[in-house]
Amino acid sequence: MKAVFYEGDRRIRVGTCTPRPPGPNEVQIQVAYGGICGTDLHIFHGAMDRRVRMPQIMGHEMSGRVHAVGSQVQGIRVGDPVTVMPLDPCGVCPACQAGHSHICHNLKFLGIDTPGAFQSFWTVPAHTVFRLPETLSLQQAALIEPLAVACHDVRLGEVKAGDQVVVIGGGPIGTLIALVAREQGAHVLVSDVNPHRLALIQELGFQVVNPLEEDLPGLVQQQTNGAGADVVFEVSGSAAGARTMTELLRTRGLAVVVAIFGQPPAVDLFRVFWRELRLRGVRVYEQEDFQRAIELAASGRLPLDKLITSVRPLEQLQAGFEEMEQGGANMKILLEV
Amino acid sequence: MKAVFYEGDRRIRVGTCTPRPPGPNEVQIQVAYGGICGTDLHIFHGAMDRRVRMPQIMGHEMSGRVHAVGSQVQGIRVGDPVTVMPLDPCGVCPACQAGHSHICHNLKFLGIDTPGAFQSFWTVPAHTVFRLPETLSLQQAALIEPLAVACHDVRLGEVKAGDQVVVIGGGPIGTLIALVAREQGAHVLVSDVNPHRLALIQELGFQVVNPLEEDLPGLVQQQTNGAGADVVFEVSGSAAGARTMTELLRTRGLAVVVAIFGQPPAVDLFRVFWRELRLRGVRVYEQEDFQRAIELAASGRLPLDKLITSVRPLEQLQAGFEEMEQGGANMKILLEV
Repeated sequence: MKAVFYEGDRRIRVGTCTPRPPGPNEVQIQVAYGGICGTDLHIFHGAMDRRVRMPQIMGHEMSGRVHAVGSQVQGIRVGDPVTVMPLDPCGVCPACQAGHSHICHNLKFLGIDTPGAFQSFWTVPAHTVFRLPETLSLQQAALIEPLAVACHDVRLGEVKAGDQVVVIGGGPIGTLIALVAREQGAHVLVSDVNPHRLALIQELGFQVVNPLEEDLPGLVQQQTNGAGADVVFEVSGSAAGARTMTELLRTRGLAVVVAIFGQPPAVDLFRVFWRELRLRGVRVYEQEDFQRAIELAASGRLPLDKLITSVRPLEQLQAGFEEMEQGGANMKILLEV
Repeated sequence: MKAVFYEGDRRIRVGTCTPRPPGPNEVQIQVAYGGICGTDLHIFHGAMDRRVRMPQIMGHEMSGRVHAVGSQVQGIRVGDPVTVMPLDPCGVCPACQAGHSHICHNLKFLGIDTPGAFQSFWTVPAHTVFRLPETLSLQQAALIEPLAVACHDVRLGEVKAGDQVVVIGGGPIGTLIALVAREQGAHVLVSDVNPHRLALIQELGFQVVNPLEEDLPGLVQQQTNGAGADVVFEVSGSAAGARTMTELLRTRGLAVVVAIFGQPPAVDLFRVFWRELRLRGVRVYEQEDFQRAIELAASGRLPLDKLITSVRPLEQLQAGFEEMEQGGANMKILLEV
């Protein structure tokens, strides 16, 4: 069967491998579509060479149909359309014991710490498999995983109807957060410096701002009669974003730290103190976020098709990475497996 | 009547002024004791020259007895022992409208934005006056204001029985936070670099650590079986404190930013993301915190006497500042007015 391998130093090899039959508590999925995530791009750039095992099969955003099930697996049948919540926690660490197994201290992330979905048949633990409604297209279903991230972020961001929300960073995750926050009834403004992305996000019906051209804090103050935003999602991972998030918030407002910061940025803790601001970090998702993401995608209310920039054959993973590197109006690139 | 004035450039003048009779909604208090706050020291150092109006009468931590009441004032009688919650909010700004009048955008802080308590008779709005039990000594009652800060911090820190709490910075506020957190049933560790303060805090029954001599994160990990602290109070205002607070916390633990940071420090937002940590700023107090502080002080359960380093006559304010500057085992210096 087909697979694509990361072999270090920006090298991708298209090859084959032997399908692994499912163990008693595993499910083997015939992969339909795989989405390329920013994390996969990081791996391609060599930033995670100490974590992955080369040759590494990447991929953790996907959809497919069940091909085989292990002897102990219940409730999942051959032919079911499914997606995977790619988290395999240890169950015994302090985070797992406290009920936060999604951020387990020893978490195995499928497709990073184990082989991933960029292969014809993917064998995974049964507890990671979520059945999908037949009405949901498998292309859109490949967006469930990043949509679940957005559901988690908006849930922990406590977004309520009528809230003024600002999303700093309009990539795929930022745009999905904007969509989910709007579903909650919030008024959402998206800030980004990429005019192509801003144009796309504006087409989706959002207010957009390029903070290099407009006074974002001034605008938010004006729109909220001097109060400030209720919730800010920091999805840019930039020093400017870390500076701006506290500037935009109302008293006791909440900044949600979604982005991965390579370096600890300066944070205006004086303003955090002065306005009694709140910050919270959010990472991946919990079961209920995956369920919510499936419901939302199946409802047809979200314009997920507009977020799919292109669909390429599996063999073109490297070309997909190069497309992402070029920037422009790219959102999500899918691989047809 | 007596008063002491800040006249800029580290100059304190002992002099006199005319008592101001109370307006219809005001109360005139004969001041018994005034505590010297770190903020007063900042004023003395000239750091708030743009905010205060010279000659400025400082002082906002105090106790005394009612000397006269305005015609519209109810429930407060001449002779009542009282203290003052020195906040005068505008009532109309977005923070006040949202119910957060204690951090009003246009807050007048009595003793900073208006004349303060370092004078024989202090006239204040009736809504700021809290009656005290006759059983509470007026010396201890002068600590109600900083104790209310600690009550606010611990309440917003959501400290629960059994929690592992770390207080970074063992000055008067840090020590009061430790005492209030212990009242909630928490196990409290106090970190400071001043050995004199650590000795005093240890005498109060707390575990203490000098992070220059011991591995504080390692110790907290060990004591919590690898989980980390539930709540960390950052009261040092130092870059090291801002770095350490995220290092100490368990998954979804809470860092409470109490200190005033002159410069935005680097904050490890990667760890905030990775462990889904929470941060929140806290400032001054609300009515319920003042009530709780009065109850706690009146209960006799807190060793407040041990926090009073010295009691000096009002005229020795300058000597009090110099005593604070010397460091050592100083906690709270009271002025007898």
